[in-house]
Amino acid sequence: MFTLDQTLKNDTHDLGSFPLCKLLLADNKLYPWFILVPQRENLTELHQLTVEDREQLWKESALLSRWLEEVYAADKLNVAAIGNVVSQLHVHHIARYRLDPVWPKPIWGIVESVPYTEAEVESIQRRLSELFSLFNDIAG
Amino acid sequence: MFTLDQTLKNDTHDLGSFPLCKLLLADNKLYPWFILVPQRENLTELHQLTVEDREQLWKESALLSRWLEEVYAADKLNVAAIGNVVSQLHVHHIARYRLDPVWPKPIWGIVESVPYTEAEVESIQRRLSELFSLFNDIAG
Repeated sequence: MFTLDQTLKNDTHDLGSFPLCKLLLADNKLYPWFILVPQRENLTELHQLTVEDREQLWKESALLSRWLEEVYAADKLNVAAIGNVVSQLHVHHIARYRLDPVWPKPIWGIVESVPYTEAEVESIQRRLSELFSLFNDIAG
Repeated sequence: MFTLDQTLKNDTHDLGSFPLCKLLLADNKLYPWFILVPQRENLTELHQLTVEDREQLWKESALLSRWLEEVYAADKLNVAAIGNVVSQLHVHHIARYRLDPVWPKPIWGIVESVPYTEAEVESIQRRLSELFSLFNDIAG
């Protein structure tokens, strides 16, 4: 059975599930930073996904990415499966701006972090409802 | 017509082509660092790929990743489309070790770099011939 890694759980807000992936929001409002976690056991690398799951992951990633571009008007997306700290397979999706604090560097490993308020997370959840409806799925 | 970005060209060795992607070797032997570049015009984000190209990219990525695990005995792969410096869509594939110089941090933006010798690049090209033959393609 799939269980979300404890560190991921501690550092994020659970925004719901697509057909394959859980969608998490990194608890750092300095960057619009979302994470897709395929709900499959014992995966650490992208190439371990079945062909069907791989196609589904990148379909969900494409829809999330287009939503990020639209809602956050990002200059660039950063999409990455790293996993040096948390090995459970998870794919970062970050909206980046030429004027953000560390541009053009990647943001992983940056120490500074500002948590969201509950109201801010709820606002993001409301904006996400349209994205979830694309999958005829219920966020929760 | 697809043209490789000049910075990517300057900083890498061209190892050949899969059906969709050009395979590059970052010229820094501190890390086994390979880059797939879909040979399509005007792409900057993964979600801009057609569904067919997206499937082909991740097929090529999976084969490259399994080869990296086998040949380099990596502890972890880092797979990422960042593009904050070079916007032309390219996907990093890096074999990481718990004992490498910057573990567990990502390696992008690390200043230290040691170029390969010509003989070292040729040796990598020879080891790659098996991977290219999986695609019934000719490296070059």
